[in-house]
Amino acid sequence: MATMLDSKSAVLRDARLGIEEFNYAYAETLDAMDVDGWVEYFTEDAFYHVIARDNAESGLPLGLIYCEGKAMMRDRAYALLNTEMFAPRYLHLSITNTRALAIDGDEIRASANYTLIETLVEETSRIQQVGKYRDVFVREGGRLLLKERICIYDSVMIDNCLVFPV
Amino acid sequence: MATMLDSKSAVLRDARLGIEEFNYAYAETLDAMDVDGWVEYFTEDAFYHVIARDNAESGLPLGLIYCEGKAMMRDRAYALLNTEMFAPRYLHLSITNTRALAIDGDEIRASANYTLIETLVEETSRIQQVGKYRDVFVREGGRLLLKERICIYDSVMIDNCLVFPV
Amino acid sequence: MATMLDSKSAVLRDARLGIEEFNYAYAETLDAMDVDGWVEYFTEDAFYHVIARDNAESGLPLGLIYCEGKAMMRDRAYALLNTEMFAPRYLHLSITNTRALAIDGDEIRASANYTLIETLVEETSRIQQVGKYRDVFVREGGRLLLKERICIYDSVMIDNCLVFPV
Repeated sequence: MATMLDSKSAVLRDARLGIEEFNYAYAETLDAMDVDGWVEYFTEDAFYHVIARDNAESGLPLGLIYCEGKAMMRDRAYALLNTEMFAPRYLHLSITNTRALAIDGDEIRASANYTLIETLVEETSRIQQVGKYRDVFVREGGRLLLKERICIYDSVMIDNCLVFPV
Repeated sequence: MATMLDSKSAVLRDARLGIEEFNYAYAETLDAMDVDGWVEYFTEDAFYHVIARDNAESGLPLGLIYCEGKAMMRDRAYALLNTEMFAPRYLHLSITNTRALAIDGDEIRASANYTLIETLVEETSRIQQVGKYRDVFVREGGRLLLKERICIYDSVMIDNCLVFPV
Repeated sequence: MATMLDSKSAVLRDARLGIEEFNYAYAETLDAMDVDGWVEYFTEDAFYHVIARDNAESGLPLGLIYCEGKAMMRDRAYALLNTEMFAPRYLHLSITNTRALAIDGDEIRASANYTLIETLVEETSRIQQVGKYRDVFVREGGRLLLKERICIYDSVMIDNCLVFPV
């Protein structure tokens, strides 16, 4: 039973493996709460959206976070971290089930599952948020960048004001 | 330190990557509660079994779900979804640790870990079930299909009547 | 959009895929509580350390488990399993986000996320520990082995005496 990938499947697999490497570096940057590092995973005019699954499925565009461009993303993340209500915590973001779905010109449509576990001081670890990424990647200078990341979460938020980027 | 995979390892790696792609598509189909789509991941006469780890390890064949063939799987899943006790919920199935263990003729023996997180309306996300797949894949028309999937779960079920396929 | 991996990226990807296969076999060995099998994933003089994230980040070397060499690892794990306080439980170790970071001579520096879910008799499954591996792998006789695995956990331990190797 030898390898029998046709060329389209081989290109999608290669894209998937590259996106996995991107996603794992991305998760490590967020776990370190490195906001400036985080925005560098996106194109200058990128679209970043965090939205509840029931809103996404009913076509309502209302989301918890809605950013166009890196400046807006950076502002939003710093504002959160400087909120008095943001208790110190450790974040642990695992990204699984990464799929490269289609390649249209220089864009790759992709998806993945994410699970964000948080640990507050003196508390046990808990699931903060689970959801799916709906992504559009582009390649700039040989490097993958997110042109669009829509984070569709299943979870009821413990406190909507305090959602951290995923 | 160059690539030093022997040909057997290269074939197993290729099988593993193909099964990962299969498993991620499979999980997305179940998260959408698409029962008709789900059975299409199996061969016509496939064996699908969900069994507790203590039963599996003591050789007891008694399982929560025991299906032979796609018709039985479809019936079982529809019956569950139409139970009055099945409260609306979101499912989030992450499949990790996918391994291709051996290739015997046209069959691939494989395993993986699965984690099913469920979110009921107005509740926080919780672990519904964790377990391992013990799989036999075949290739039909260039496509992987499950000939056998045995789901061995660690978790004590909250309600045995309401176990959803994983 | 063809594959455009330079040779350094191709070598790192190959290392990453090999380490994933290693990690998934490693997890299965620990889930089976096979202590003798577990130490065989390490070099004879390996360094194995389990340490809290706040200690690791503040440079404090104090850890829950600190072992040099396979004999010490084996002793520590058997001592734990034979403690009266170690209640029977199922372990489910998922390793995600595996990254090959750099290759220095015959050593590969790598990292990964781990999530250990435990299930005690008649209880629901819960997160026992989440954390990150900081690893150094070497290749001996064509096989990967851990020369160093530092497990940095986020979680507050339920009971420090009962931490199981991850």
